Amino acid sequence: MEDPTQARGEAAASTNTGVLIVHGADRAGIVAAVTRVLAAHGANIVSLDQYTDDPGGGAFFQRTVFHMNEFFAMRPSLEASLEAELTTLGLQWRLVDRSQPKRVAILTSTSDHCLLDLLWRHRRGEIPMTVPMVISNHTNVAEDVRSFGIPFIHVPSQGPDKSDAESEIVKLLSGNVDAVVLARYMQILSPAFLGDVAVPVINIHHSFLPAFIGAGPYRKAKERGVKLIGATAHYVTEELDEGPIIEQDVVRVTHADSAAGLQRKGAYVEREVLSRAVLAHCEDRVIRNGRETIVFS
Amino acid sequence: MEDPTQARGEAAASTNTGVLIVHGADRAGIVAAVTRVLAAHGANIVSLDQYTDDPGGGAFFQRTVFHMNEFFAMRPSLEASLEAELTTLGLQWRLVDRSQPKRVAILTSTSDHCLLDLLWRHRRGEIPMTVPMVISNHTNVAEDVRSFGIPFIHVPSQGPDKSDAESEIVKLLSGNVDAVVLARYMQILSPAFLGDVAVPVINIHHSFLPAFIGAGPYRKAKERGVKLIGATAHYVTEELDEGPIIEQDVVRVTHADSAAGLQRKGAYVEREVLSRAVLAHCEDRVIRNGRETIVFS
Amino acid sequence: MEDPTQARGEAAASTNTGVLIVHGADRAGIVAAVTRVLAAHGANIVSLDQYTDDPGGGAFFQRTVFHMNEFFAMRPSLEASLEAELTTLGLQWRLVDRSQPKRVAILTSTSDHCLLDLLWRHRRGEIPMTVPMVISNHTNVAEDVRSFGIPFIHVPSQGPDKSDAESEIVKLLSGNVDAVVLARYMQILSPAFLGDVAVPVINIHHSFLPAFIGAGPYRKAKERGVKLIGATAHYVTEELDEGPIIEQDVVRVTHADSAAGLQRKGAYVEREVLSRAVLAHCEDRVIRNGRETIVFS
Amino acid sequence: MEDPTQARGEAAASTNTGVLIVHGADRAGIVAAVTRVLAAHGANIVSLDQYTDDPGGGAFFQRTVFHMNEFFAMRPSLEASLEAELTTLGLQWRLVDRSQPKRVAILTSTSDHCLLDLLWRHRRGEIPMTVPMVISNHTNVAEDVRSFGIPFIHVPSQGPDKSDAESEIVKLLSGNVDAVVLARYMQILSPAFLGDVAVPVINIHHSFLPAFIGAGPYRKAKERGVKLIGATAHYVTEELDEGPIIEQDVVRVTHADSAAGLQRKGAYVEREVLSRAVLAHCEDRVIRNGRETIVFS
Repeated sequence: MEDPTQARGEAAASTNTGVLIVHGADRAGIVAAVTRVLAAHGANIVSLDQYTDDPGGGAFFQRTVFHMNEFFAMRPSLEASLEAELTTLGLQWRLVDRSQPKRVAILTSTSDHCLLDLLWRHRRGEIPMTVPMVISNHTNVAEDVRSFGIPFIHVPSQGPDKSDAESEIVKLLSGNVDAVVLARYMQILSPAFLGDVAVPVINIHHSFLPAFIGAGPYRKAKERGVKLIGATAHYVTEELDEGPIIEQDVVRVTHADSAAGLQRKGAYVEREVLSRAVLAHCEDRVIRNGRETIVFS
Repeated sequence: MEDPTQARGEAAASTNTGVLIVHGADRAGIVAAVTRVLAAHGANIVSLDQYTDDPGGGAFFQRTVFHMNEFFAMRPSLEASLEAELTTLGLQWRLVDRSQPKRVAILTSTSDHCLLDLLWRHRRGEIPMTVPMVISNHTNVAEDVRSFGIPFIHVPSQGPDKSDAESEIVKLLSGNVDAVVLARYMQILSPAFLGDVAVPVINIHHSFLPAFIGAGPYRKAKERGVKLIGATAHYVTEELDEGPIIEQDVVRVTHADSAAGLQRKGAYVEREVLSRAVLAHCEDRVIRNGRETIVFS
Repeated sequence: MEDPTQARGEAAASTNTGVLIVHGADRAGIVAAVTRVLAAHGANIVSLDQYTDDPGGGAFFQRTVFHMNEFFAMRPSLEASLEAELTTLGLQWRLVDRSQPKRVAILTSTSDHCLLDLLWRHRRGEIPMTVPMVISNHTNVAEDVRSFGIPFIHVPSQGPDKSDAESEIVKLLSGNVDAVVLARYMQILSPAFLGDVAVPVINIHHSFLPAFIGAGPYRKAKERGVKLIGATAHYVTEELDEGPIIEQDVVRVTHADSAAGLQRKGAYVEREVLSRAVLAHCEDRVIRNGRETIVFS
Repeated sequence: MEDPTQARGEAAASTNTGVLIVHGADRAGIVAAVTRVLAAHGANIVSLDQYTDDPGGGAFFQRTVFHMNEFFAMRPSLEASLEAELTTLGLQWRLVDRSQPKRVAILTSTSDHCLLDLLWRHRRGEIPMTVPMVISNHTNVAEDVRSFGIPFIHVPSQGPDKSDAESEIVKLLSGNVDAVVLARYMQILSPAFLGDVAVPVINIHHSFLPAFIGAGPYRKAKERGVKLIGATAHYVTEELDEGPIIEQDVVRVTHADSAAGLQRKGAYVEREVLSRAVLAHCEDRVIRNGRETIVFS
């Protein structure tokens, strides 16, 4: 068991703590420029991770966590300086206030393992997020969700035309969330939905992608006789099961595991992988880079 | 992540299915004798695991899962034959009816991660057990427990003298349970208690035993600078943290993990290790052998 | 790191020790029949593994390791009894004398990591095999191979027509080997070759099959942005990369690993996975079952 | 299997590439100061890792890999600037030229698994080191070592007084090596030896420290009935088995593994753990911090 994407010493939500993400074309002096601006505003750097995919002229990525007294008051001045310095260097950046947890809606169907694991970790204060609502096309998890003090909303999804259900979900989410997590939501979302929702959508796929793309991965794994099964958390894109991977893990199986046994074992990998991915996203440790992700530990 | 102790294809509770455990001094012909008796009663062997710790004359252990039509009715006759055959060979044996789940009481304190994982796996029907009660020396988990439809009983444990609390717990458990699970129960149980309870007691220790025996293992692990932390599920004996180990696992950590971070990461290993150990115990896959256990997969 | 296929207490080569493999359609009484025959010949069972893929009438597999005084002398009589008993039950069986190690030829190209790991484990006496020859279409590993006291034979393989090279290899192997291991042999073998060689051929594929079938798996893994890379050891069949899987494992990677870095990390998984698979095969712990394998631990 | 300490994209030895290690009491502005100096000398930062053990005033650690044209020529000027800037801030620093591999002597006894794994990886160019000599108190590995083109020196170590042997080893090493690796060297080194050698000494202990300190760890592990065994690479200090840990890993075992089986399985963990630790050390990714190490990935 390993857990490379889990939070380190960082508190789930911290006052006077900022996260600065910078990326763009690499060139000499970026780290110096960023840290100079931060130092000029009295920031103390708590951690700095930096990555260049090709030192000879590739893409540059930096995540800096810093502590700054009166961060809320200092923020406009800091942003102005970052704009001045980093725009000159042709870089993109965003600044996050760690005292503001992300608002994350969870969509689910009938399975409860990923959903409950997220809600448990959330209740323990381990993930810097709030959960404004859980939406499901079924009702069996309603009571569980409400026992956590979280609104449960039933949006049925029957028949071949999903546009009404999607419209209703978009209406519920619009302006209210910073991210959407599909915790075993067994409906394929349309490109229009992804466009309308306009926030990152994280999915858990119950196989070690790109093996066993599509439906029935445990059955396919059983037929192929694999010795490990896995799960993959990824950002959802218009191409099914092809979005950038955030986290993966596997569990050992044997010939003695039936397809149902694979599904049972797989559920524990799914919940771990999804929870780690959501944690990494909410701590702003994931940067998308085309089909790949940079996940700073 | 690996999961060697998880149930394979075996259903959580099955009618007309028996488990026969045999152990004793090894000699030629034991497997033949056992399987001959089973065959004579029309049993079909579903799985058979056998282990001899020294082929030249050590101890012999065998677990056989079999299907038998009208098992309930056939049982007296089967038992008589086993007694006749196996007593001659100087062997010990016990026969378990898989349609009867084990009755398991859970003792806990304030932490919910191990408790909730057990209750949730139980609700999913993954562990062949019933949970007649959860007992805690605190009350914070009461509502969660009751939401699973399971009785919660508060037995406070204050002051240096724990004998009243232990007496009350013994009274609650006597005759009502087949095993007791300590799901992060933060009280040391007396030898008298273990004797009075008279069923196996399973504990989860939050370190990779025998490293960091005693209190504060995560703090000690941080001070020692280890690169992996672990958890250990074991049967409780009179010697603290020295009972036979059922299951262990670890998770990777780094210098960047604070002691609190180790505790957070460790919690997910603890729940996995304890749940796997309880599953193995309830499926009669664990045989105690002095300070060791045989755990058939 | 885990190692489910590694030998347990079994010595690499043992006198008076036999392995009996039985498989066929399941029915009640097979284990009893097999063990009765063994007991009648004075065998002491060292370990017995049994598996039925469907207790309601599927396929049955059993591997029994036993100790028998004067095994060499007793063998004809034992075989006659097995034939009489097991043929009646419609079962297939084979009997292996553990004092006779398997003769295994290794084919390789330029990479040395899998080859050296096999030769070194062989020298330590950990795998019950002899290595009568190493064949390569290159010469760079010749000196290493010969330093282990093993013949090295160079069979060049240039141009599109591989039939001459294959014929030469078949001539070298015919009658001299019980198995062939492809230790990163970078030539695709023809169906004719597989037919002519007529012994099991084990290959190591440098990906977690069925992900990244075909050439360049590390490059593909980098492009897809996976978080784990793997290796797969499998029996070679006429369909490329589709043969029954014997063993798999993975290693964690990050965005910071280049394609060359993946290849470097992957090499250590490849050697482990191949060596474990060869060990399992040489200990007769692998039974083919269509596209799957039964691998007894 | 996981491998967090293995080199990422970094080439084993690179021209015009430097590594700068800085550590000391934390204060605002250190990263800015360091990167400003580097930028002023035209460096392009390839990777930067930073860690503060307590943002409210703890210890600060930074490792920066950079590319600089004409690094050899620029080095004196860069060092002068670093001295001026960093001394003011009360920091310690060291600058490493990645074109200069570390000179690493290996001490061993009779076991070859750790030794050969290091020599194989070295020959493949995976570890930025040279191996000027292998010293052993036995002679059985001499031929293997010399087949790699590396000098083998036999220094016997008999009787209770090891001072002569230690003196001879010190004489061989003095001025010739930057680090010493104990690849299963079964002699306890005296404090005087460690002082005289005056370079870091890395040892592999065949248990998951702090479990099973001292001799016979596999036998102790068998007696305790653990379900995982491990290995630990650490810097050697005057206190036996108590030096700062660089890397650890484990492998799963069962009741069926004999003590000899544990040793066999353990050997594969030992070689992996030691090789990873030596790699991390040679890439200057390890910083000692009292009893702990910072190991940047």
